[in-house]
Amino acid sequence: MALKQADPELADLRSRIRHSAAHVLAEVVVELFPDAKLTIGPPTQDGFYYDFAVDEPFTPDDLKRIEKRMRKSIGRNHPFVEREVSRKEAVELVKDNPFKLEILEGIPEDEDVTFCAHGEFEDLCRGGHVESTGQIKAVKLLSASGAYWRGDEKNPMLQRIYGTAWESKEAQAEYLHMLEEADRRDHRKLGRQMNLFFFDPVSPASPFFLPKGTYVFNRLVEYVRGLYGRYGYDEVITPELFLTDLWKTSGHYEAYIENMYTMEVDEREYGVKPMNCPAAAIIYASSLRSYRELPIRLADFGRLHRYERSGVTHGLMRVRSMVQDDAHIFCTPDQIGDEVRDFIAMLQESYKVLGFEEIRYALSLRPENRVGSDELWDSAEAALTEVLEASDLKHDVEPGEGAFYGPKIDMFVPDAIGREWQLGTVQLDFNMPERFDLDYVAEDGSKQRVVMIHRAMLGSLERFLGVWIEHLAGNFPVWIAPVQAVLVPITDRNVEYCRGVQAQLKASGLRVELDDSNERMNAKIRKAQLQKIPYMLVVGDREQEGGTVAVRLRNGDDLGALDINEIEERILNEVQTYA
Amino acid sequence: MALKQADPELADLRSRIRHSAAHVLAEVVVELFPDAKLTIGPPTQDGFYYDFAVDEPFTPDDLKRIEKRMRKSIGRNHPFVEREVSRKEAVELVKDNPFKLEILEGIPEDEDVTFCAHGEFEDLCRGGHVESTGQIKAVKLLSASGAYWRGDEKNPMLQRIYGTAWESKEAQAEYLHMLEEADRRDHRKLGRQMNLFFFDPVSPASPFFLPKGTYVFNRLVEYVRGLYGRYGYDEVITPELFLTDLWKTSGHYEAYIENMYTMEVDEREYGVKPMNCPAAAIIYASSLRSYRELPIRLADFGRLHRYERSGVTHGLMRVRSMVQDDAHIFCTPDQIGDEVRDFIAMLQESYKVLGFEEIRYALSLRPENRVGSDELWDSAEAALTEVLEASDLKHDVEPGEGAFYGPKIDMFVPDAIGREWQLGTVQLDFNMPERFDLDYVAEDGSKQRVVMIHRAMLGSLERFLGVWIEHLAGNFPVWIAPVQAVLVPITDRNVEYCRGVQAQLKASGLRVELDDSNERMNAKIRKAQLQKIPYMLVVGDREQEGGTVAVRLRNGDDLGALDINEIEERILNEVQTYA
Repeated sequence: MALKQADPELADLRSRIRHSAAHVLAEVVVELFPDAKLTIGPPTQDGFYYDFAVDEPFTPDDLKRIEKRMRKSIGRNHPFVEREVSRKEAVELVKDNPFKLEILEGIPEDEDVTFCAHGEFEDLCRGGHVESTGQIKAVKLLSASGAYWRGDEKNPMLQRIYGTAWESKEAQAEYLHMLEEADRRDHRKLGRQMNLFFFDPVSPASPFFLPKGTYVFNRLVEYVRGLYGRYGYDEVITPELFLTDLWKTSGHYEAYIENMYTMEVDEREYGVKPMNCPAAAIIYASSLRSYRELPIRLADFGRLHRYERSGVTHGLMRVRSMVQDDAHIFCTPDQIGDEVRDFIAMLQESYKVLGFEEIRYALSLRPENRVGSDELWDSAEAALTEVLEASDLKHDVEPGEGAFYGPKIDMFVPDAIGREWQLGTVQLDFNMPERFDLDYVAEDGSKQRVVMIHRAMLGSLERFLGVWIEHLAGNFPVWIAPVQAVLVPITDRNVEYCRGVQAQLKASGLRVELDDSNERMNAKIRKAQLQKIPYMLVVGDREQEGGTVAVRLRNGDDLGALDINEIEERILNEVQTYA
Repeated sequence: MALKQADPELADLRSRIRHSAAHVLAEVVVELFPDAKLTIGPPTQDGFYYDFAVDEPFTPDDLKRIEKRMRKSIGRNHPFVEREVSRKEAVELVKDNPFKLEILEGIPEDEDVTFCAHGEFEDLCRGGHVESTGQIKAVKLLSASGAYWRGDEKNPMLQRIYGTAWESKEAQAEYLHMLEEADRRDHRKLGRQMNLFFFDPVSPASPFFLPKGTYVFNRLVEYVRGLYGRYGYDEVITPELFLTDLWKTSGHYEAYIENMYTMEVDEREYGVKPMNCPAAAIIYASSLRSYRELPIRLADFGRLHRYERSGVTHGLMRVRSMVQDDAHIFCTPDQIGDEVRDFIAMLQESYKVLGFEEIRYALSLRPENRVGSDELWDSAEAALTEVLEASDLKHDVEPGEGAFYGPKIDMFVPDAIGREWQLGTVQLDFNMPERFDLDYVAEDGSKQRVVMIHRAMLGSLERFLGVWIEHLAGNFPVWIAPVQAVLVPITDRNVEYCRGVQAQLKASGLRVELDDSNERMNAKIRKAQLQKIPYMLVVGDREQEGGTVAVRLRNGDDLGALDINEIEERILNEVQTYA
């Protein structure tokens, strides 16, 4: 996740502002906490942090005091002054600070050692500041938390202060508003509130989907399956546990084993699959293939497991157990263009339905080290470029950024509060067909190497659900909302009538609940709103007599009394059109 | 799998006939292969075997010779004569045979040692013969294969001869016919032939489902989901990897760890789940439950992994990786009867659709060692009994056979060739709610222990598919057949017309292929029959002119020319009615 990219010049300015703000933070902390030892304080995507070795965690009050003093320091508009120092002098300057000494040791002999000062404060630093503190037009400390030195839990625990800093008060206000919105939309909160999913320490970073979350998950799979039917994909089911020989063949073993769950069975090493591609290769290789069969498009909703350190897992966004809308296309080199074009068409169709209208494409071209002939790369890159240009798709070209096994296009979307997410990808692979010896009999009877294409639209469905819930603020569209409408009888007299309406709507395939609890109407409506149920159908005596329901929407809109058939048609229409 | 049960008397006779036949087999083998050492030779469900220590494996010709001589020996009608011998004498009798010596050592001191003779042959034996060899009215040797002494691969390899023997030639003929049929229906053969699934050594005993097999698998899940919708089940998705703490809580750790895949992660032991129940308990426990919410029925199609030794795995019938149509019901003790009754109704509905009309129920009652109060057992057993009796369901009662945690009902069905399979089960569980401390707030505000019910209709879907394919001989009903019809143009002139028909049928949601290969019509029809495609729609000039297709069924029936709309309606109707 990241804010939508700023232009490079602004991005550079922001990075320097934040690096500078970290210096000011360090200045103030050693002033207020003389025993604090400085360690590192880099700029980040949207702000900065600084890690301090202190005896006590920082309190919210500490942060307020620190922030106030930072503003003062900034107000003095100290210039940042860099100076080169000898190693000996540098060691002398930081001799009381084992962390800085360690950093110093890590600086290669042939690199200069620089310190940077503003006012009376000076810190070991590589540079990258604004000219003076006054250019930090806005700064805000956000939070503090523990963090291990160098991120390693065997090292001492430090205290990290997170902040953000901007080129204008407006930019910061916008960012802080986005943070607030992000907090309000936090999928972990909504997941609990809407009874979608939860986590339990007995299976770290692996969601338990409750019935409503399961409905959404399954409906999403079903939706993608529907697309697969129309776009000519075939689905397969492949095992989850393999002898690690599989990944020795695929080449993943060397690069990825650290992220895999492995075990010893019958004196051989097995692993839980972290990706579907090698299994797709096994399926392709399971029978002799003719050019007539190509392209073969194999989709696999297999569950994948990837070990992530507990420090980096985050709700559904980064989990250890996931399902991808994963498919592998096997085709001839000539078919690459058509396949990528059709894939992008399907992806666009799905993003539109899912409420992501704007897509940024990033085309990554050949890196220095690669497999496959230049001829193959030429034609593949040309095919990808042509697909993007023919449809006039806004895209960035990133030379050298392709994988060693082939060029790729990644798809990014902005969400409702301006953050950008990578969802889709389409990657050509000239390597796996070599490793698994995958070929087809060409029209002339010769054996030819097949091309493999990895592609996903939504990526990990768990992560997508996390992104989507935050994008929608939990307001799932009607077609996939686990409960589409709730009937709210005002008195007990109206319950029977509500049951009839519920039965009618259910018979049409709608997912309708009846809230016949003893609570008051307003409490029931509030409950339904927290559950983000699209339609609240309120029934009092008047509605009952008129054969209607009073319709309220989750956004608070009041549609007044509607005839049962009218509301039924309205909802069914929304389902059909993915409204 | 087993043949349908014979009545106890006949079953006992057959067992004695087969035990006797094993003796005759041993007699002949030592006669023909004087160096052969005898080991053990028990009767089995449908026959018998004998394991011999010999230098060379038996050839098919050996089996013929042996069988011929066995018939001779049987013709002599030797009486079986048992005699008790002292241990000393016994040791003397088998002193050249280390296997028999080992068996002898294993006989408890307070047990008699007996030998049994017929003609000049005598063998150490516990007894259980017919009176004389002449009562073996039919015998047939079936196969030979290697087998480790005592089933342990660290022991010497022996050679096992399998045979069968019966009380009449007719009974044996029927059985041999069944074996032939079973071979013809072998799901492993049909799985390859019909492109449903295959196995690969890189993931032992774990099927790869090809697109057609995946279609059937997913359609089956969808069918069960449809039932769940109507019978008030909620589906959940739970993790697959857990800290083994989970199974320490559930109690499975002690009993089941040998069959689990476990690994070390972050210095803690994790396991891959072999069953869904503990995860269901975690979900139940994830919020405070009120009696108003009960019953809660949680279905989970989670993938399970169970370690099985490679010697016992068998096609889809016994795999290491499976999905069950598994659900857990949480209810009050009072709700047990209704829940079991509704479950059986759903099970009956599904078995009917799937082509298993006859069901045998086996009710297992309290064992000696158990948890839960007698009061709870009384009412639970009464509830199960009442359900079975109220619906007049044919059932066996098996006192003492219940699990320690509760009584259960198992469901058995006979397949098309007379073998009986256990598919369904419903098991009450008084233990897991204790271990996970699962309760609900009763109407009076008190906390009450909830009852947990494990239930499955089809059991492992992989295994069910294996059983089902053999039951159907691959002839999936139209509603689930991966390809419902294939269009067979007789000449190239007819291809275009066929495409139109295909488009029309596909638009109605039917799964229709077009065979526009260069093969002759008869070859195309043969191919379609091997694929067990329900409808072959043949199109020549005459059909094309008349707007019809000539309809052939996979069983060879010829329906003649039918109007397109007519055949479309026919197939759609079969889909709708699960015909």
